[in-house]
Amino acid sequence: MYIGIDLGGTNVGFGIVDEDNKFLFKDSIPTRKSLNYEEVCDDIIELIKKAVKALNKDLNCVKGVGIGVPGIVNPSNGMVIECVNLKWKNIPVRQYLEERLNVPVSIGNDATVAGVAEFAVGAMKGYNSGVLLTLGTGIGAGIIIDGKVYDGAHGIGSEIGHVIVGENFFDCNCGRNGCLETFCSSTGIIKYAQKLIEEGNKTSMEEEIQGDLNKINGKLIFDAAKNGDKIANEVVSRMVKYLAIGIVNTVAILDPEVIVIGGGLSAAGEFLLNKIIKEAKERVYFNGAPIGDIVLSKIGNDGGIIGAANLCRLNKK
Amino acid sequence: MYIGIDLGGTNVGFGIVDEDNKFLFKDSIPTRKSLNYEEVCDDIIELIKKAVKALNKDLNCVKGVGIGVPGIVNPSNGMVIECVNLKWKNIPVRQYLEERLNVPVSIGNDATVAGVAEFAVGAMKGYNSGVLLTLGTGIGAGIIIDGKVYDGAHGIGSEIGHVIVGENFFDCNCGRNGCLETFCSSTGIIKYAQKLIEEGNKTSMEEEIQGDLNKINGKLIFDAAKNGDKIANEVVSRMVKYLAIGIVNTVAILDPEVIVIGGGLSAAGEFLLNKIIKEAKERVYFNGAPIGDIVLSKIGNDGGIIGAANLCRLNKK
Repeated sequence: MYIGIDLGGTNVGFGIVDEDNKFLFKDSIPTRKSLNYEEVCDDIIELIKKAVKALNKDLNCVKGVGIGVPGIVNPSNGMVIECVNLKWKNIPVRQYLEERLNVPVSIGNDATVAGVAEFAVGAMKGYNSGVLLTLGTGIGAGIIIDGKVYDGAHGIGSEIGHVIVGENFFDCNCGRNGCLETFCSSTGIIKYAQKLIEEGNKTSMEEEIQGDLNKINGKLIFDAAKNGDKIANEVVSRMVKYLAIGIVNTVAILDPEVIVIGGGLSAAGEFLLNKIIKEAKERVYFNGAPIGDIVLSKIGNDGGIIGAANLCRLNKK
Repeated sequence: MYIGIDLGGTNVGFGIVDEDNKFLFKDSIPTRKSLNYEEVCDDIIELIKKAVKALNKDLNCVKGVGIGVPGIVNPSNGMVIECVNLKWKNIPVRQYLEERLNVPVSIGNDATVAGVAEFAVGAMKGYNSGVLLTLGTGIGAGIIIDGKVYDGAHGIGSEIGHVIVGENFFDCNCGRNGCLETFCSSTGIIKYAQKLIEEGNKTSMEEEIQGDLNKINGKLIFDAAKNGDKIANEVVSRMVKYLAIGIVNTVAILDPEVIVIGGGLSAAGEFLLNKIIKEAKERVYFNGAPIGDIVLSKIGNDGGIIGAANLCRLNKK
């Protein structure tokens, strides 16, 4: 059996799954983030021990523990380099847990973990290689090559949200201009919608927000676009254009079997997916070149736990 | 021993190397490209048999034959999909040779083969993963991951020359706009130099070309830039800017241990390399993130043969 931990800023999602990724145990505890890292980790250790006991097993039955962290991690040495939510910097999470549990521990960032979940039980299942793009506040990515997690020589690969695809009217958090996530994350499309409204364009979205531009969100934009609003559709078209460039750039380097669209904005469903497929196929080089499947995410709320539990099985390539 | 064949439009380079990539035999014959593919392949077969005999060996001693082709190939099924120089389309080269030689045959495009040569005996030697960018008439790329050739699920990966990095004033041969090779190949920089001269900018290059813009070439531009010519330096700066974007985009996805700069333009040497390193380090995301080494190619004229001979050893990932 494998243990998956979805370490969030508010809650720690926890689960034990069997070889077939069926849940044997599931729980969640609050993240006591005011404590130091040792105490947060001790909470996790206690939870693991309790759960294993509840199943009438012992720690020897646990083949691996995986942890997904919303931040920058180094999977090679198991350090959390930075996790803003938990105010962690250079924390040796793997070492701390392995010394106390005597079980192999793997660690990955949340986008990698989501990619692993897609591969284990979701939209990448049955494929050998694939890329997950999570369209949320930013854009995360998880890369699977030959059934293993790929994140590069220094752990800074698999950051497709920071592929430069054009010039944008505002800079990225990373300090540069033109990153994919400034065009295609919810932050990116909200800023562009706000810009168009500020420039005096009329849109049905204005009724919803009653003059408060801060009320614009991804769902509002996509709902308006689906209802035929011209400005909302302009925002979506721009997003899709740059996302297609990001996808064909990924194809030009990695040529994966499948590209999975996940994250909050993927709730726009087929409406968004069909536009992405059309635009990516039009933009791939040498018209007609084969391009991997482009599909919607299939992992649900437990994806963070299942992905983490499978991290240790998909050893880093 | 391994056999490497560098199939060019004019000559077929041929060599037999031992386990340590030392040449045991080397030869070259003209490519009789007016013939059909069977006869070109028969020429190669005869050459192989003669060479093996000259070494007092037989074909059983040959562990593999590798062929580099200047065109689009499918390494999985050993087909040459298109080779403009030889007027080949959908040619089953591997099958034809394997049936007649009874030796494993591998096939790769010339950029992949050059990448393999860098890995076996050149600037990637000692690294586990790396990317070669050949800056020539176009931009080719060879990707090595975990000591194996990587070219994606449909053989259309590893085309970093077709990563879109901006908007250019002319379209790419692939039918799109903004591909890396339109900014950073010799074709790309020649067109930009011609444009600047046509716009009336004064440059020392004009004396060399005596009014004939077709005489501009990569060497002329770099020589003028090294001598302080303002326009030539503007051309080089633009090339380096977009090459750095191409490199940091590759890093954001692949994060290789090393990036090797090869191809004709790499003859500009440290003058070019130092500018690339400076600009790539400035443009990498999250200022100060680790980035792989950036170095010049180290394979010489025999690179095509040695790379081909090593193709069969670095089985496709």
